[in-house]
Amino acid sequence: MTNPHQRLQQLGIVLPKPAAPIANYVPFTRTGNLLIVSGQIAFGNDGLLTGILGKDMNIEAGKIAARACAINLLAQVAVALDNDLGRVTQVLRLGGFIQTDPAFTDIPNVMNGASDLMVDVFGDIGRHARFAVGCSSLPLGSAVEVDGMFEIA
Amino acid sequence: MTNPHQRLQQLGIVLPKPAAPIANYVPFTRTGNLLIVSGQIAFGNDGLLTGILGKDMNIEAGKIAARACAINLLAQVAVALDNDLGRVTQVLRLGGFIQTDPAFTDIPNVMNGASDLMVDVFGDIGRHARFAVGCSSLPLGSAVEVDGMFEIA
Amino acid sequence: MTNPHQRLQQLGIVLPKPAAPIANYVPFTRTGNLLIVSGQIAFGNDGLLTGILGKDMNIEAGKIAARACAINLLAQVAVALDNDLGRVTQVLRLGGFIQTDPAFTDIPNVMNGASDLMVDVFGDIGRHARFAVGCSSLPLGSAVEVDGMFEIA
Repeated sequence: MTNPHQRLQQLGIVLPKPAAPIANYVPFTRTGNLLIVSGQIAFGNDGLLTGILGKDMNIEAGKIAARACAINLLAQVAVALDNDLGRVTQVLRLGGFIQTDPAFTDIPNVMNGASDLMVDVFGDIGRHARFAVGCSSLPLGSAVEVDGMFEIA
Repeated sequence: MTNPHQRLQQLGIVLPKPAAPIANYVPFTRTGNLLIVSGQIAFGNDGLLTGILGKDMNIEAGKIAARACAINLLAQVAVALDNDLGRVTQVLRLGGFIQTDPAFTDIPNVMNGASDLMVDVFGDIGRHARFAVGCSSLPLGSAVEVDGMFEIA
Repeated sequence: MTNPHQRLQQLGIVLPKPAAPIANYVPFTRTGNLLIVSGQIAFGNDGLLTGILGKDMNIEAGKIAARACAINLLAQVAVALDNDLGRVTQVLRLGGFIQTDPAFTDIPNVMNGASDLMVDVFGDIGRHARFAVGCSSLPLGSAVEVDGMFEIA
């Protein structure tokens, strides 16, 4: 059984303290065993990862941005679960939005940056359904936005 | 406890009579306590609010379009709940799609037009998870499209 | 009561054998009675249906692409349900992403290709909530991507 907090430590990831919401929405809601997490943009340790895939950002940088979104999702999940990620029983779905030039179509590869992180942290229960699409623009110019649904105990 | 119908009246909002579906989909489905509402476009009292943010529509007009989508969501929720919005126990999630020029990235601000309406009508249980992204185009040129998930009693 | 397997046969549709996932995500997850299926692109019998609506693909071709996505969704649902589509009790929601030129806004019409297929196969329980939006680009240049949520017994 994978311990997600141990895995984060092994991966050298310290979950950021999520920013307080600045509008009339919240980082997550829950109903029954379902935890719904708001779309997270690509804030990393050095600020927001901005760029347009196929124009001024390459795939490797895009994957890092997608991974940052996934880390920010986990930071919100940790808050929702009183800092116990072990209460996640299944990552149900990730919704991936990639900021793309119309000619760029290697969207799944970019999104793998988020998907890989989930499996790195949760093991088999980290394998999720997902979609990944290209967007004309994203909040603040973030290269990627990812939202999530988690089954929790 | 906020009474959503009183709040609508105080806000001067009369929910529109939703149009009958003209294709093989329905305005909402439900499973258990979950109500899933189809994406609503920005039909207002004077017709559809069309435009592209960052090109021919400014942020204030975009917020009004997002608010119109939210009102149309509530109109569908009211039909689903036999006109008793008091049966909504939590607004779970809004999905926001904004029609944008690639250079426009102030997407959260536009989406606030929909989020604010939910909290104006439902109070604390109106605070929802959400995502907001920019789209190259939307149905009929609507400036905004918003779908929703609600927990109901 | 519609038998979905008989309907598929009458429609001359043979569900494709879904490809094995090639990344850290899975074709579907489930929680309780909810089946969540990953976004499917427009692989048909003759390969992937690529194109941009309003640029190099017309509406009829777009509807065929949307229908192909819907067939691929059903192929995944069949795997999830041990090849018994009769266990679907309601098609809850389709999420439709159409690859569009910014000037193209007849998105609902294209998406009807997917919606019609669900009702053709499942009858009344095939009527679903949906959204449909235009994307600047989609995986591998697919004209359409559709994901789905199903209530299952």
